[in-house]
Amino acid sequence: MDWHQIFATRNDRMKASEIRELLKLLDQPDIISFAGGIPDPNLFPAEAFKEAFSDALGPETQATALQYSVSEGYAPLRDWIVGEMARLGIPCSRDNILITSGSQQALDYLGKLLLSPGDTALVGWPTYLGALGAFNAYEPRYDRLDPETNRSAEDYAEAAGEGRVKFAYMSVDFANPTGRTLDAAMRERVIDLADALDIAVIEDAAYQSLRYEGEALSPVLAREIERKGDINACRTLYCGSFSKTLAPGLRVGWVCGAQDVINQMVLLKQAADLHSSTINQMAIATVATAQFDSHVSKIKAAYLERRDWMLQALETHMPAGVTWTRPEGGMFVWLELPKGIDCAALLAQSLKTERVAFVPGHAFFADGSGTNTMRLSFSNANEDGIEEGIKRLGRLISAAF
Amino acid sequence: MDWHQIFATRNDRMKASEIRELLKLLDQPDIISFAGGIPDPNLFPAEAFKEAFSDALGPETQATALQYSVSEGYAPLRDWIVGEMARLGIPCSRDNILITSGSQQALDYLGKLLLSPGDTALVGWPTYLGALGAFNAYEPRYDRLDPETNRSAEDYAEAAGEGRVKFAYMSVDFANPTGRTLDAAMRERVIDLADALDIAVIEDAAYQSLRYEGEALSPVLAREIERKGDINACRTLYCGSFSKTLAPGLRVGWVCGAQDVINQMVLLKQAADLHSSTINQMAIATVATAQFDSHVSKIKAAYLERRDWMLQALETHMPAGVTWTRPEGGMFVWLELPKGIDCAALLAQSLKTERVAFVPGHAFFADGSGTNTMRLSFSNANEDGIEEGIKRLGRLISAAF
Repeated sequence: MDWHQIFATRNDRMKASEIRELLKLLDQPDIISFAGGIPDPNLFPAEAFKEAFSDALGPETQATALQYSVSEGYAPLRDWIVGEMARLGIPCSRDNILITSGSQQALDYLGKLLLSPGDTALVGWPTYLGALGAFNAYEPRYDRLDPETNRSAEDYAEAAGEGRVKFAYMSVDFANPTGRTLDAAMRERVIDLADALDIAVIEDAAYQSLRYEGEALSPVLAREIERKGDINACRTLYCGSFSKTLAPGLRVGWVCGAQDVINQMVLLKQAADLHSSTINQMAIATVATAQFDSHVSKIKAAYLERRDWMLQALETHMPAGVTWTRPEGGMFVWLELPKGIDCAALLAQSLKTERVAFVPGHAFFADGSGTNTMRLSFSNANEDGIEEGIKRLGRLISAAF
Repeated sequence: MDWHQIFATRNDRMKASEIRELLKLLDQPDIISFAGGIPDPNLFPAEAFKEAFSDALGPETQATALQYSVSEGYAPLRDWIVGEMARLGIPCSRDNILITSGSQQALDYLGKLLLSPGDTALVGWPTYLGALGAFNAYEPRYDRLDPETNRSAEDYAEAAGEGRVKFAYMSVDFANPTGRTLDAAMRERVIDLADALDIAVIEDAAYQSLRYEGEALSPVLAREIERKGDINACRTLYCGSFSKTLAPGLRVGWVCGAQDVINQMVLLKQAADLHSSTINQMAIATVATAQFDSHVSKIKAAYLERRDWMLQALETHMPAGVTWTRPEGGMFVWLELPKGIDCAALLAQSLKTERVAFVPGHAFFADGSGTNTMRLSFSNANEDGIEEGIKRLGRLISAAF
């Protein structure tokens, strides 16, 4: 039977990526990979989780840990997050927090909540690939969010055609894929723009805790609360995650925002998967309460070292004409090669001859541009691997000039 | 700000239910509840899970347990499911299995995969409330699936108007909410109808393992494979769950079907939440491998007893004019009261005076009929509670005549 006759139209936008196929080769042990963007599993607080799961399954709480629970999420975890948000300048209550299965699910639900087919989502050029994937299911148009330009709200609204601009999405700190951080003035301008357009702001803060140097910048949501006095009057929806700080395999993240939005998202979540794993929420609450800060300090020290090795190696081995970002945190460095060099072709070649993997930047652009860019991750590599891998990559790129 | 100006149109169909509001009262300790439909937490294999989580977090596997994993699901769990499907007469391979976060998520993804706005979903009158909730997000029309009538494929197709009929959904064994089982002839007719309409069949088998008496019926998918020779030529998508057998709090279920469908669902899942919790999939695989059959035998013995208590109590306390189903398994008995009695009003009254909870049947009907029906669950009640609760309910219903 021809399933494509039966699939909904949205599936036309959900295709397997060629890059994903190429990157399946990463299992091969001789490849040096800067592709992942995943945490170093050696840094997981595994012993703490072992105790936390054992506690959750103790006689007092096992019935709760294994049973259905409410769609909103486990109350003590939501309360811990309320404390964390307060530290970031975001006073809120438990009712402003929805627990999601990772912040990827938060993006899916926000697309589902806000986008009818043909509506416009404003995103960076480039932006997080997984956000485009999540939003694509709701068949939006994309327009370029670029707070550095003076493009007017009217101009954005007009470009939306028959749909409506619904939100501006951005990863604010050490963004995936660029490693760049949105500065204070740009954060304020995003709020101005969103107010003028009467749209939501999706603040993806997945890397927020992983700052290795420089002053932390107040989140967009904190700035909007400063202006409007109350989170329930704000349009910014903050997406947080434990995947980069504690462990991704448990799939626990959250959305923090106005109660009207959280209430509606609870209904969406109830219809979509009832709730996130009860026991995992309990284990995350236990480990976060006991050692979030000390654990984050530990992993930051490790990732900072790797970032420095990578920046040093790039300095040493990249030919003139290649530029890259200098991230203050997170996991990524973004390379721009001379126009005309196709990084997807370069990856195919690299896997064949140099055995180094990276992600071609192309896939991060909603308009398909950026063929001369690439993303390198340093989070899961060691000093020798970084030095050798960047050396090989420099050789390959030099040959492509 | 007025969020309803920004929400996507699908949200018009995702409203908080009044019943849900009423049932929030269930926390009160003096209420006897037949509303839940949840497993008895005293029957969870908690010690086995405690060991399984501890093993998963042992030195060899902790990095895997806490890390990102593939969207398809944990291979050893998919392999265990392949064995289970074979036992049910469904020969398949690992590539025919997608792990989901409970079978509720499978329903969400199947709606997402198949429904464009205005397409038609065929469902029972009544059907599982959570299926309607999941599908509503994709803005379908509903038509009544009733394999007992001789309604023609042409008639179904015509009623679909400008959309297209996309699938027939049904819970096949001891269905939620009715407790009824689709007999062999009806299973065959659903395949005939789906072939004639060229649509998918969604076979919700959440309660399949919980048969307390009578012969097991071969699943719709097994019958279709008998006809067509190969699962990859079949249109039936089988949804399984560990929520009713091992534990719902871990959120682990699966879809089994043609590889073309599973491949596309993997892309949807990747975009929606990356993957289901790695550690939970590992723990379920361990516990299922060690004791699925023996554990299921144990809980079946307990639920059978409760079913019998409830059927006995209904016999004793219900006035003439009330009829109910006699389920061969599962968790539910379905009551039909004389027409004109409104069970939603009866619930409000019951919570006030009799302190007995149930679910009014109304919500299980896509057309809003069935106001004179109610669902009772026996899975989480004890002998005294059942006797006393049904006695009170009988009194209340008698008074309503």
